[in-house]
Amino acid sequence: MASHSLTLPSSSPTFAPFSSHQILPPSLSTVRFSRPINTKPNHHSLRCSVSIEKEVPETERPFTFLRDSDDDSTHSSSTSVRARFEAMIRGAQDSVCEAIEAVESGPMFKEDVWSRPGGGGGISRVLQDGNVFEKAGVNVSVVYGVMPPEAYRAAKGSASSDQKPGPVPFFAAGVSSVLHPKNPFAPTLHFNYRYFETDAPKDVPGAPRQWWFGGGTDFTPAYIFEDDVKHFHTIQKQACDKFDPSFYPRFKKWCDDYFYIKHRDERRGLGGIFFDDLNDYDQEMLLKFSTECANSVVPAYIPIVEKRKDMEFTEQHKAWQQLRRGRYVEFNLVYDRGTTFGLKTGGRIESILVSLPLSARWEYDHKPEEGTEEWKLLDACINPKEWI
Amino acid sequence: MASHSLTLPSSSPTFAPFSSHQILPPSLSTVRFSRPINTKPNHHSLRCSVSIEKEVPETERPFTFLRDSDDDSTHSSSTSVRARFEAMIRGAQDSVCEAIEAVESGPMFKEDVWSRPGGGGGISRVLQDGNVFEKAGVNVSVVYGVMPPEAYRAAKGSASSDQKPGPVPFFAAGVSSVLHPKNPFAPTLHFNYRYFETDAPKDVPGAPRQWWFGGGTDFTPAYIFEDDVKHFHTIQKQACDKFDPSFYPRFKKWCDDYFYIKHRDERRGLGGIFFDDLNDYDQEMLLKFSTECANSVVPAYIPIVEKRKDMEFTEQHKAWQQLRRGRYVEFNLVYDRGTTFGLKTGGRIESILVSLPLSARWEYDHKPEEGTEEWKLLDACINPKEWI
Repeated sequence: MASHSLTLPSSSPTFAPFSSHQILPPSLSTVRFSRPINTKPNHHSLRCSVSIEKEVPETERPFTFLRDSDDDSTHSSSTSVRARFEAMIRGAQDSVCEAIEAVESGPMFKEDVWSRPGGGGGISRVLQDGNVFEKAGVNVSVVYGVMPPEAYRAAKGSASSDQKPGPVPFFAAGVSSVLHPKNPFAPTLHFNYRYFETDAPKDVPGAPRQWWFGGGTDFTPAYIFEDDVKHFHTIQKQACDKFDPSFYPRFKKWCDDYFYIKHRDERRGLGGIFFDDLNDYDQEMLLKFSTECANSVVPAYIPIVEKRKDMEFTEQHKAWQQLRRGRYVEFNLVYDRGTTFGLKTGGRIESILVSLPLSARWEYDHKPEEGTEEWKLLDACINPKEWI
Repeated sequence: MASHSLTLPSSSPTFAPFSSHQILPPSLSTVRFSRPINTKPNHHSLRCSVSIEKEVPETERPFTFLRDSDDDSTHSSSTSVRARFEAMIRGAQDSVCEAIEAVESGPMFKEDVWSRPGGGGGISRVLQDGNVFEKAGVNVSVVYGVMPPEAYRAAKGSASSDQKPGPVPFFAAGVSSVLHPKNPFAPTLHFNYRYFETDAPKDVPGAPRQWWFGGGTDFTPAYIFEDDVKHFHTIQKQACDKFDPSFYPRFKKWCDDYFYIKHRDERRGLGGIFFDDLNDYDQEMLLKFSTECANSVVPAYIPIVEKRKDMEFTEQHKAWQQLRRGRYVEFNLVYDRGTTFGLKTGGRIESILVSLPLSARWEYDHKPEEGTEEWKLLDACINPKEWI
């Protein structure tokens, strides 16, 4: 594998493929890459002709973004985890987009497909200014890259090894989505499921192949309907409980901790589940768990949107929603690891920032009056609750 | 001075007093402070009663935010630079607010005054949702703090000193403002002028008092009217030329380099002047230069707003302005040193983020058609021009 013409992860549009979570585990993403990158990041509009972006637009979706060598019997007795994970995220993209279009009964998703010469690629689907959704984006991406040996050693926890492996090829794939409805009573949803794998370095006998799963689904309403929040969390818990009773409480707390806007001491929303760097369970089990979580998006979310999309609202309700969207922007631009990593490393900017709402609002020193519906939402963002 | 009960700069609401530039020179702001700070930053709304913010709201503007000991003959043969700088920034705040209110002929500025027990304080003035301005903020602040000795040594360039001074008291003061008009043909303006000074450490004989000036004024239209841009830059150049013919070209380029949205390879606007860490000129001259720059804000900007505020515009013009305001948000939250420093260190969040527009917009993959007015603006943000 080391002889492949591998591209740097940092120049990939898919590396922080959507908004909210890098595909790389955080332990790796903070390592400096050995070649200088992103001295001139891509510029999205006027100078596309001289863009340094390496993705190639495609007119058709390929059957797979995997390299030929990846989906064969050398990886597993049946089909490789890479191949099954890719199939899973592409299936999730299809089913979520279909469900959104059914609710929307208006504009359809616009699709952008790209591939990369060295392998990998992605499909971005965005629906903007629809009947029900202000902005909805559902992206999948598959990335091949190399990481410096220091990152690999740090990741496997043997920093003082005398062996000096060369750059380590890795594979990363994920689905990522943010759905921003128009109606202020319909919540924003985000989900992202990703899988990461290194090749076993050829020049270090016995060095293992590394792999991780990460992801989560979280819920960001501007107004609280307790039934909605309970429904959403119940579906998350049911997905978790099929695999391990410790998952829901642990990943629920991880979610509350992750989506934290530190400078406001607020979460951006009402949580859900979040996990990262997960590799201390059976790999097949975690693949099934990720699949279950991704499949739970539609039943967890769509019934809520159906219920709320046509509710009457005032300008004040809309302004509060826009204000909460301002918080969403603050979280994504200041804290979200996928976004900040993508911005620093020159990822495809439109894929990274499609998570931002169509519009957002900042009022000076806005303080909802105690006891109001706005106050209740803010209180729940400041003091995370157990909803079920 | 070292015996004063000094508060950490990081907990000050005024330390990154408005949006765009920290008062501390960047060389100092990147140093870790020796006490853990901001484990629980302020939360602006529900829990004010348990806020850790140290500022105290005041009902009246004090004559000065200086400590008694600062404005006496020990600092200079006449009035100290600190005192004269404070007088200058408060005068600038008054004159800019008066000029804005005259144009606005609607809502007036809302004023928040605060002080701090150990000395220092600030005045925030914000006008929101007016006839002419969507949001206008003009803040002054005066900060007393201490910096760790490492920062002081780094700042004066003697890192390997054997002498170990204790924490070094410093003084910082600044005026900072962002003015966002409603009409998409009227430009956004930002300016900030600041002065920084350390006390001479008592325990290191001969160690000098350090001081710096920083600041700038920059211009962010959504549409280019060449006459407006030329007028704005001409006034900046005239202010600079009164002091040094090298200032305008040097500070114009510095401005283009500073307000750079790296992930888009775009500047946020059409520049102006910017300087930082300036101490290699006569101190009195730089005080006069800062004063001249601050006094140039009204003649550089107000005539342009007068000319554009009532122009007819379409929804498309407004949407493009909102989209450029999205870029403003991206710059301020991701790159601006004052904002990012303020967010990290738990500054008064409403003062820091008052620079954000009332509303902003993000469209997926928006590309203005070549040759349009929107394209021309974007082109000028990508390829900075010499306007005069």
